Amino acid sequence: MRVAVDAMGGDFAPDEIVAGAVEAAREYDCDIVLVGDEPAIREALNRHSRWSELRIEIHHASQVIDMHDQPGAAVRKKKNASVVVATRLVKEGKCDVVIAAGSTGAAAAAALLGLGRIEGIERPTIATPLPNLGGTTILLDSGANVDSKPKHLLQSAIMGSIYAEYIMHIKNPRVGLLNIGEEDSKGNEQALATYPLLKQLKTIRFIGNVEGRDIPKGTVDVVVCDGFVGNVVLKFGEGLAGAIMTLIKDAFTGGGWLARIGAALALPALKGLKRKLDYAEYGGAPLLGVNGGFIICHGSSKAKAIKNAIRVGREFSEKKVVDHIRENIAREGIIGNDE
Amino acid sequence: MRVAVDAMGGDFAPDEIVAGAVEAAREYDCDIVLVGDEPAIREALNRHSRWSELRIEIHHASQVIDMHDQPGAAVRKKKNASVVVATRLVKEGKCDVVIAAGSTGAAAAAALLGLGRIEGIERPTIATPLPNLGGTTILLDSGANVDSKPKHLLQSAIMGSIYAEYIMHIKNPRVGLLNIGEEDSKGNEQALATYPLLKQLKTIRFIGNVEGRDIPKGTVDVVVCDGFVGNVVLKFGEGLAGAIMTLIKDAFTGGGWLARIGAALALPALKGLKRKLDYAEYGGAPLLGVNGGFIICHGSSKAKAIKNAIRVGREFSEKKVVDHIRENIAREGIIGNDE
Repeated sequence: MRVAVDAMGGDFAPDEIVAGAVEAAREYDCDIVLVGDEPAIREALNRHSRWSELRIEIHHASQVIDMHDQPGAAVRKKKNASVVVATRLVKEGKCDVVIAAGSTGAAAAAALLGLGRIEGIERPTIATPLPNLGGTTILLDSGANVDSKPKHLLQSAIMGSIYAEYIMHIKNPRVGLLNIGEEDSKGNEQALATYPLLKQLKTIRFIGNVEGRDIPKGTVDVVVCDGFVGNVVLKFGEGLAGAIMTLIKDAFTGGGWLARIGAALALPALKGLKRKLDYAEYGGAPLLGVNGGFIICHGSSKAKAIKNAIRVGREFSEKKVVDHIRENIAREGIIGNDE
Repeated sequence: MRVAVDAMGGDFAPDEIVAGAVEAAREYDCDIVLVGDEPAIREALNRHSRWSELRIEIHHASQVIDMHDQPGAAVRKKKNASVVVATRLVKEGKCDVVIAAGSTGAAAAAALLGLGRIEGIERPTIATPLPNLGGTTILLDSGANVDSKPKHLLQSAIMGSIYAEYIMHIKNPRVGLLNIGEEDSKGNEQALATYPLLKQLKTIRFIGNVEGRDIPKGTVDVVVCDGFVGNVVLKFGEGLAGAIMTLIKDAFTGGGWLARIGAALALPALKGLKRKLDYAEYGGAPLLGVNGGFIICHGSSKAKAIKNAIRVGREFSEKKVVDHIRENIAREGIIGNDE
């Protein structure tokens, strides 16, 4: 198992990316190929003692795609960009999966152009795990596509169900269509057209419409929606969880000395809560529907997020998620990329 | 000032509705007309000591619209339904504003059919106040309309800005378009078409695109979006806030005796937090764009929510929000209901 890590992407590259890779190499049974500017990567590696004893290699790439580049054009033009080179390593069978932080658009473009789509998939989609009361809900699409057609949501449902089963270890996952009511007569044009099609799928367990509140409640495992809605929900959730943690802190520190003692005593419990809400624990979101493993990380990823993404990428590849997607898309009779 | 309250709507009618009305009558300077089944209302009132000394009257209505009724049809057929009768009292000038819990669809239909739209408004919209770190953000539309056209979002922006100014007391409110990125090139077809039109409005302060995270952060006062997106965000937020409160409780009670002592000491601070996240404090959401005051409450409203809705309704009417909307819609040159 060889994992290609774009060492140059994200707000804290290459230091935090390299640190995460070193942690992963110590903990997991896999080879890690750090792709990017060799001197910079080597310098970052040298901050870690005895890293040369780990299964880590450097693969030089002379260019970088940054947040100001137009994603599609940059991927086409910068053939030696770290994310493009990392993707090529997977395409050529030299690595099994890519881990990339930084510009989500550039990562998605590199994956799409470098690996191609699975037969039958028109729009690859980003599946984001969200914490809920009992475990995790997978939200997709969480921002790769907007103005999706019903067939795109169908493809998301099939892919998300496989991801939930093989990577999140949820048996027979419940798949719901995100809507504004539970009744099948509810929704906008897109939802109304998608509902009956989802009901006909054979490879998923469709439980009908779900509402926004079902996500944190955990009454659904895979939530299918348009990427516009998914992206708004995702960012709103991140913001709200952060705001509530701030309010808790304020309540304690502004609540007089009794509250402050209470906060001190309750600190370990609160840290547990914070960890539950911490997106970094989940280790990136896979781009589903491309011909190969590709895990996209938040641009602000630090070492822990990268380490967890490497764990997810490893499992993604070992469990052969791409093959399962190809199989189920074929079983549902979805053929051809007619876009 | 006379407030018509539908006493029969919502999960806890008539008892909680009546209790909220009694509280409001004790606290605010206004007359309250409880509309619905007279014997049931009288029985509920008799649980409150010396209620007959308050400025409360009963207006009998023999029918009720429940959650199983199809909203539009029910409003047309049940001429004596409590929500229809309450709306008629405003239409005929006998009351100034309606407060209605229960079926949102039925309330909106009763308002639309009973009061009509303000000239230039095609789709009345529900404006929901959401708590943020510093105060309140108004979200609209939060579920009345889906598949909105850009002009509907424009009308929402104008109406939401007036509401924020006069009822939430925010001077020169910042209006943002909910989107998946801040750049003006971001978004789905609807957002891309709406952005340049919002920029041209003279009566609002448009600050550009905002993202989901800006709502809890409080970096925007009025957030404009399609009702599908707004409804998902609203319910997701309610669910997430509830889930986090549950996690906090679990963290304390499951965290050993130190955490439990901490929780006991921190209880007042936590109660303050809970109150900040409590939607009942905000007292319902106005239906903006109809010719009259109409405040819609959550179906699960209890006395406190009803009391606060009466306060909002009273201010809505006193501040002449309907007149300000009519004026600004005319100033923007939006004329005629061409649907």
